[in-house]
Amino acid sequence: MIIVLKKDTAPDKVNEMIRRFEEMDLQVQEIRGVHETILGLIGDTSRLDTDDIKSMNIVAEVKRIQEPYKNANRKFHPDDTIVDVSGRKIGGGHFQVIAGPCSVESREQMTAVAAAVKASGAGLMRGGAFKPRTSPYAFQGLRAEGIEYLLEAKKTSGLPIVTEIMNAAHLPLFENVDVIQVGARNMQNFELLKELGKVNKPILLKRGLANTIEELLMSAEYIMAGGNKNVILCERGIRTFETATRNTLDISAIPIIKKQSHLPVIVDPSHASGIRWMVHPLSMAAIAVGADGLIIEVHDHPEEALCDGAQSLTPDQFDEVMQDVKRTVTFFGKQMD
Amino acid sequence: MIIVLKKDTAPDKVNEMIRRFEEMDLQVQEIRGVHETILGLIGDTSRLDTDDIKSMNIVAEVKRIQEPYKNANRKFHPDDTIVDVSGRKIGGGHFQVIAGPCSVESREQMTAVAAAVKASGAGLMRGGAFKPRTSPYAFQGLRAEGIEYLLEAKKTSGLPIVTEIMNAAHLPLFENVDVIQVGARNMQNFELLKELGKVNKPILLKRGLANTIEELLMSAEYIMAGGNKNVILCERGIRTFETATRNTLDISAIPIIKKQSHLPVIVDPSHASGIRWMVHPLSMAAIAVGADGLIIEVHDHPEEALCDGAQSLTPDQFDEVMQDVKRTVTFFGKQMD
Amino acid sequence: MIIVLKKDTAPDKVNEMIRRFEEMDLQVQEIRGVHETILGLIGDTSRLDTDDIKSMNIVAEVKRIQEPYKNANRKFHPDDTIVDVSGRKIGGGHFQVIAGPCSVESREQMTAVAAAVKASGAGLMRGGAFKPRTSPYAFQGLRAEGIEYLLEAKKTSGLPIVTEIMNAAHLPLFENVDVIQVGARNMQNFELLKELGKVNKPILLKRGLANTIEELLMSAEYIMAGGNKNVILCERGIRTFETATRNTLDISAIPIIKKQSHLPVIVDPSHASGIRWMVHPLSMAAIAVGADGLIIEVHDHPEEALCDGAQSLTPDQFDEVMQDVKRTVTFFGKQMD
Amino acid sequence: MIIVLKKDTAPDKVNEMIRRFEEMDLQVQEIRGVHETILGLIGDTSRLDTDDIKSMNIVAEVKRIQEPYKNANRKFHPDDTIVDVSGRKIGGGHFQVIAGPCSVESREQMTAVAAAVKASGAGLMRGGAFKPRTSPYAFQGLRAEGIEYLLEAKKTSGLPIVTEIMNAAHLPLFENVDVIQVGARNMQNFELLKELGKVNKPILLKRGLANTIEELLMSAEYIMAGGNKNVILCERGIRTFETATRNTLDISAIPIIKKQSHLPVIVDPSHASGIRWMVHPLSMAAIAVGADGLIIEVHDHPEEALCDGAQSLTPDQFDEVMQDVKRTVTFFGKQMD
Repeated sequence: MIIVLKKDTAPDKVNEMIRRFEEMDLQVQEIRGVHETILGLIGDTSRLDTDDIKSMNIVAEVKRIQEPYKNANRKFHPDDTIVDVSGRKIGGGHFQVIAGPCSVESREQMTAVAAAVKASGAGLMRGGAFKPRTSPYAFQGLRAEGIEYLLEAKKTSGLPIVTEIMNAAHLPLFENVDVIQVGARNMQNFELLKELGKVNKPILLKRGLANTIEELLMSAEYIMAGGNKNVILCERGIRTFETATRNTLDISAIPIIKKQSHLPVIVDPSHASGIRWMVHPLSMAAIAVGADGLIIEVHDHPEEALCDGAQSLTPDQFDEVMQDVKRTVTFFGKQMD
Repeated sequence: MIIVLKKDTAPDKVNEMIRRFEEMDLQVQEIRGVHETILGLIGDTSRLDTDDIKSMNIVAEVKRIQEPYKNANRKFHPDDTIVDVSGRKIGGGHFQVIAGPCSVESREQMTAVAAAVKASGAGLMRGGAFKPRTSPYAFQGLRAEGIEYLLEAKKTSGLPIVTEIMNAAHLPLFENVDVIQVGARNMQNFELLKELGKVNKPILLKRGLANTIEELLMSAEYIMAGGNKNVILCERGIRTFETATRNTLDISAIPIIKKQSHLPVIVDPSHASGIRWMVHPLSMAAIAVGADGLIIEVHDHPEEALCDGAQSLTPDQFDEVMQDVKRTVTFFGKQMD
Repeated sequence: MIIVLKKDTAPDKVNEMIRRFEEMDLQVQEIRGVHETILGLIGDTSRLDTDDIKSMNIVAEVKRIQEPYKNANRKFHPDDTIVDVSGRKIGGGHFQVIAGPCSVESREQMTAVAAAVKASGAGLMRGGAFKPRTSPYAFQGLRAEGIEYLLEAKKTSGLPIVTEIMNAAHLPLFENVDVIQVGARNMQNFELLKELGKVNKPILLKRGLANTIEELLMSAEYIMAGGNKNVILCERGIRTFETATRNTLDISAIPIIKKQSHLPVIVDPSHASGIRWMVHPLSMAAIAVGADGLIIEVHDHPEEALCDGAQSLTPDQFDEVMQDVKRTVTFFGKQMD
Repeated sequence: MIIVLKKDTAPDKVNEMIRRFEEMDLQVQEIRGVHETILGLIGDTSRLDTDDIKSMNIVAEVKRIQEPYKNANRKFHPDDTIVDVSGRKIGGGHFQVIAGPCSVESREQMTAVAAAVKASGAGLMRGGAFKPRTSPYAFQGLRAEGIEYLLEAKKTSGLPIVTEIMNAAHLPLFENVDVIQVGARNMQNFELLKELGKVNKPILLKRGLANTIEELLMSAEYIMAGGNKNVILCERGIRTFETATRNTLDISAIPIIKKQSHLPVIVDPSHASGIRWMVHPLSMAAIAVGADGLIIEVHDHPEEALCDGAQSLTPDQFDEVMQDVKRTVTFFGKQMD
């Protein structure tokens, strides 16, 4: 960490600051120039908050050099993390497609979609039982009943299930869920993240609409600091001024995350665009850029979908996309198993 | 709501769609042009989701004409809502300043700051007991102990207290809190909002970093739909490309909100800028543009603040700001009482 | 175009408005509901400005249904435009890589880089003679001398050249340039665009940092309306809150543009990321998503580059990227010729 | 400027880099830690480009400490610049309102509006002769004829005129114009800025839709480096995700600019919001936050405006706004003269 002091700071104030940092077991080196004095802090600065330091009267600027995350940092864990979900591997060269409807709507729907997406090559099944909706008047999900239908579809299809949690109090309902999803709107619900750090299940953590890559990794750090190392990250589009797509897929986030972190990262082309026909080209881009998987919305009757139908593929459309996904994953040297 | 159908949609499909809407007690009017067919839906469309409709095969575009919120809508409640917090009124010409430290740090700190901000003219006191922090390694707040210190400072100073909730499970601790704050990161934590709809206390709802004004009003609607009509909105800066300030204060949000809604709206110049000396000019702008109050960070020793010291004023600096706040509020025709 | 009128608009005002539109040869259809009156305009509305209409006293909202561009619109030109640059084709299944340094620095540099990028498979050569720099104190390009060196490198290598124009007054210097580039900062320099509409050369039009896809197509329309139909579009990253990359590559813009327009579109992974090692993954993503080409910065000594060295590849690094570009272009069914 | 080197950089490489900077008359100080080596550059670093330095193989990160602008920098010019336009002063406690139509439409219009806005207290008159329009099919302004009408209105009203230039080739037409405006889309048209640096007239420089405050000051620096020190800056809204207003007025930019620079800065509430009734509250906010003036659109028949009518006030509405502008400017201690 580098601290630039204000012009003409009295030497005794500088010395007092140095002494304080040394008490925190940090080594401090000093550059005294004509215009500026600069301190270089060497050691573990992850406990320091740059804003706290900026608040000190004598400080002009602060710059962090080391990343503030440790568990999620590739520097301290050079090998790719491979998350194993009941035998389906994600990361380290293993690619998975997670598919299913936005909302769980009925037992029949889930069983039918699960069979269909499995036949097309999906490795995991998704479906929302608890639904975060902007409007209190919109369908909020079947909740406990939805989880029941998911578990039945898991039984009939053999596919592990991924579903979203919105409240730590619901955790008991997730006992037989294979992967717990944290939605974009809860990416910085730190109370929830802490609870998920104590759970012994993979967590699918979606990036918030206005969150930086560093903040996504810090939210993963919350879960990992609690003891749960099985975190799968998900890029699903950020908010920008462009309105042609619902969100702007930040495709560059994939290589950046893979450079900084060992965690697997997947892409959600359905939510990123909000447009059905864009799932195919964005899936191709995601594979090409190095993602470890995809999460795609599939609905047997998208026109009657209770939420987000505009971006859902029919099982037939999904099957077509999957033909290209499979050969493209192979072309780029990964395996789906 | 206006629905533009795709070119060359078969008349029977159009008729089926019309029939479906009519079953929902909506009146449908039709424009058939050479290039487009357009349907106009008349009636209560707040239950309809524009994305759901967009997903229908024959639909090209959808545009909502009526706002999707009702309780928060000025159309159905033309008079300003005045929220009364133990006699301190906010809204409808009444202006309040809420002041205090980012985090509650000790009994002494809270008592001292409460006395100071009261002397300067603050009507309510703030302090964070539960702190949302990006890093799991940063100070997370004194939690239950922090609320205790707040309540003691309330007793000594007589100022009502405002403090943030991060988890509905903590609600019992907030029994004697006067105003419960929902932070920017939890603005769309819908499970929390639903619980706060059942509470009989004013809620201070902060706008999320990437949330639109409409989404803020929809989150207020969640609370109000549950029965709690005492919602105070807060603009605290949005995320943009500009880096000179921590966030970009969306000053235009104040008149827009006051046009669309009857709820009081206040401004947080401390978080919006993240810079101490900007609290004064942004407070002036907030009053001038029509805000109903301010929430300002004040710390007795900002240099030693455990969080966000960079934006905290000392009690003396706050007192100076308050001199100008008072005369400016009067100039713009509001009262602080 | 759909026009929603304000509540309780007097019928004679509505009739007057209808009459006015009919005088403009537009057909007007009317929906009169209990709450709203809506007008549907049928015909060529490209001359109408939505803001102008919004300004009318009786208008509540306006929504355009038809795209405001014609020449660039795929609806009126269903086949892909193939731009032919001295035999190198771009668009309609033809893929080209444009490579070279950010700035032209010397005769030797250009000749060496041109030979190198040609050997690796680039179809066109780029180099900046006129350089838009944020600071007036930064190197502004060799200007006329730079174009001279480019033309010499064209002679020795046989590669057509692409270089940026910043001022229509410089057009005579571009007589032997093969493709004239309009930089992101000049995307809405309409005076320049009009002049380029009269030129008989392909134009490479880069998207502005804060411009929507529709605005990019409208800027292409400026050039095409002047008579020059050879426009190549370029996505080079937009400005967002994320700081891990210099800009955010809007990969979704490629399929959107190809759906709306028949013009070829290429990607600039060097400027989008500002990071050398990201050129490879972003190039892969661009090919996979359907782009018609790439523009890549290559410098023989990036460490000594006078501008943007951080994102330039060495010729050896470029050669490695090109190995994968070639096999990936083939895999996705396009040809480089 | 601070340069962080990569881990394990060989000492001879570090020494070579130090030698190179010393040859540029910079003093270099070195911190060698266990993990990082950091160089502190002391002296005039405004010629250095941070991206150039970042491109060097051994460099991990670069941070500029001193602002890259000099002429516009308050550090080197502590007193406020007061721009004098034919006796109307802007800056240093002097406040001016510039008013008039978006486009000049006719001789009669300009004469009438000029008389009206003068009567209400405007100190300068605006009107667009050359109009930057997104669509080539929209009205492009009366051009030379428009300037003629402006000059006639200047004669009849005595008000100095402000009008936009889009092309340096048009400069001869601006000979009798009092203030030349550079529009948001041309803020980084560096060729135009350079020409305006040679002109002996005040320049009104509008901030670009996606430009940072630092970039705005760098564009002012282009003009000032050419010798023209009379630059008035203008905040007119930036592009964000919010759609309730046309742009997001960055009110915080005013105090930031006034802290960093001595140049006067005004606010354009008409373009920032795009909504007529918002001109009043945003004008109040602009005065309160410390702006040196306002630029407001006024049209005698906004419903028939050829551009941007939605945001234009009628002369009567403008007069009402001006009543409050005058008393508020006085309240905040500035004078309109």
